[in-house]
Amino acid sequence: MDQFSLDTPKEGFIDITAKVRELIRHSCIRQGICQVFVPHTTAGVTINENADPDVVADMLMAFDRMVPNLPYRHMEGNSPAHIKSSMVGCSITLPVVDNKLLLGTWQGIYFCEFDGPRRRSVWVQVMGG
Amino acid sequence: MDQFSLDTPKEGFIDITAKVRELIRHSCIRQGICQVFVPHTTAGVTINENADPDVVADMLMAFDRMVPNLPYRHMEGNSPAHIKSSMVGCSITLPVVDNKLLLGTWQGIYFCEFDGPRRRSVWVQVMGG
Amino acid sequence: MDQFSLDTPKEGFIDITAKVRELIRHSCIRQGICQVFVPHTTAGVTINENADPDVVADMLMAFDRMVPNLPYRHMEGNSPAHIKSSMVGCSITLPVVDNKLLLGTWQGIYFCEFDGPRRRSVWVQVMGG
Repeated sequence: MDQFSLDTPKEGFIDITAKVRELIRHSCIRQGICQVFVPHTTAGVTINENADPDVVADMLMAFDRMVPNLPYRHMEGNSPAHIKSSMVGCSITLPVVDNKLLLGTWQGIYFCEFDGPRRRSVWVQVMGG
Repeated sequence: MDQFSLDTPKEGFIDITAKVRELIRHSCIRQGICQVFVPHTTAGVTINENADPDVVADMLMAFDRMVPNLPYRHMEGNSPAHIKSSMVGCSITLPVVDNKLLLGTWQGIYFCEFDGPRRRSVWVQVMGG
Repeated sequence: MDQFSLDTPKEGFIDITAKVRELIRHSCIRQGICQVFVPHTTAGVTINENADPDVVADMLMAFDRMVPNLPYRHMEGNSPAHIKSSMVGCSITLPVVDNKLLLGTWQGIYFCEFDGPRRRSVWVQVMGG
């Protein structure tokens, strides 16, 4: 398993596609799947448009609207971040063909920070033959 | 990796279970997992009830209620579709046992179109031995 | 593929981490991934904080707020449970390293019951070498 770290802003989506592509290339695996796993409970991983940054801005706004700051029980004040993490998920699998990550034309992989700024890790595992 | 295409209505969930079952059978893999991957940023894939079509109608209504048309930044007018795509996800893994897809009694696999009508692709990869 | 059963309360998240760890150990697989699959359409699986139970309480409250009881079409009265199931998902993949489940410090695996009390199943499949 490989991993890398990143430093996140307060809240935001960070494009990690290039880093995942590089780890797949180094794995030398030709056909299989790649698992991207985020070992945090107030962050996640998702795939969405990589062209217009407004899409990410709209997404953050929509998640804030769905999960606003309310009087929650959890005393750390980051319950919305925990809830958003379970909404997008912290694990995703991706197709690997000819030792390359295969994505749709407009797709990029985003680390979703819902509770930064923090130092975060991403775990990447490539499986196949 | 296999793939197939489908033509979608304006918005809706399309049952792709039979097609996925067929590709698993053709793969000749007996034990493993099957990855269904949607290479689009305004569509997704989910598993839900395959018996009563009202469940899908309720789901579409609920997603519209959670992610209504608001003044978004993204100029193409399909920001809600991008957001719903990240809520259900574009990648799912399924168990394969004895060269058969294993699902619960009431489960079907749905392609989720949030921004049609469009010609769409689905990528299917079976791994194991 | 392994499986285990659990009896759920009306609605709630049940920590199944220990059970998944045990099945991974028994699989004898050293490096790979573990798929946890829930074969139900009104339940799901997610990863979130395993320390403070208030996080789960906040999550249930937030999902109820996002998907309230409305006049739905589906006559069984559990449409919100179906919708929540697709929001968290019924399938998750996890990293396995040195024959051990690898999770972040605060992460636990939760079976999400949105429509209990019921007898439920969880399917666990470990792949790799």
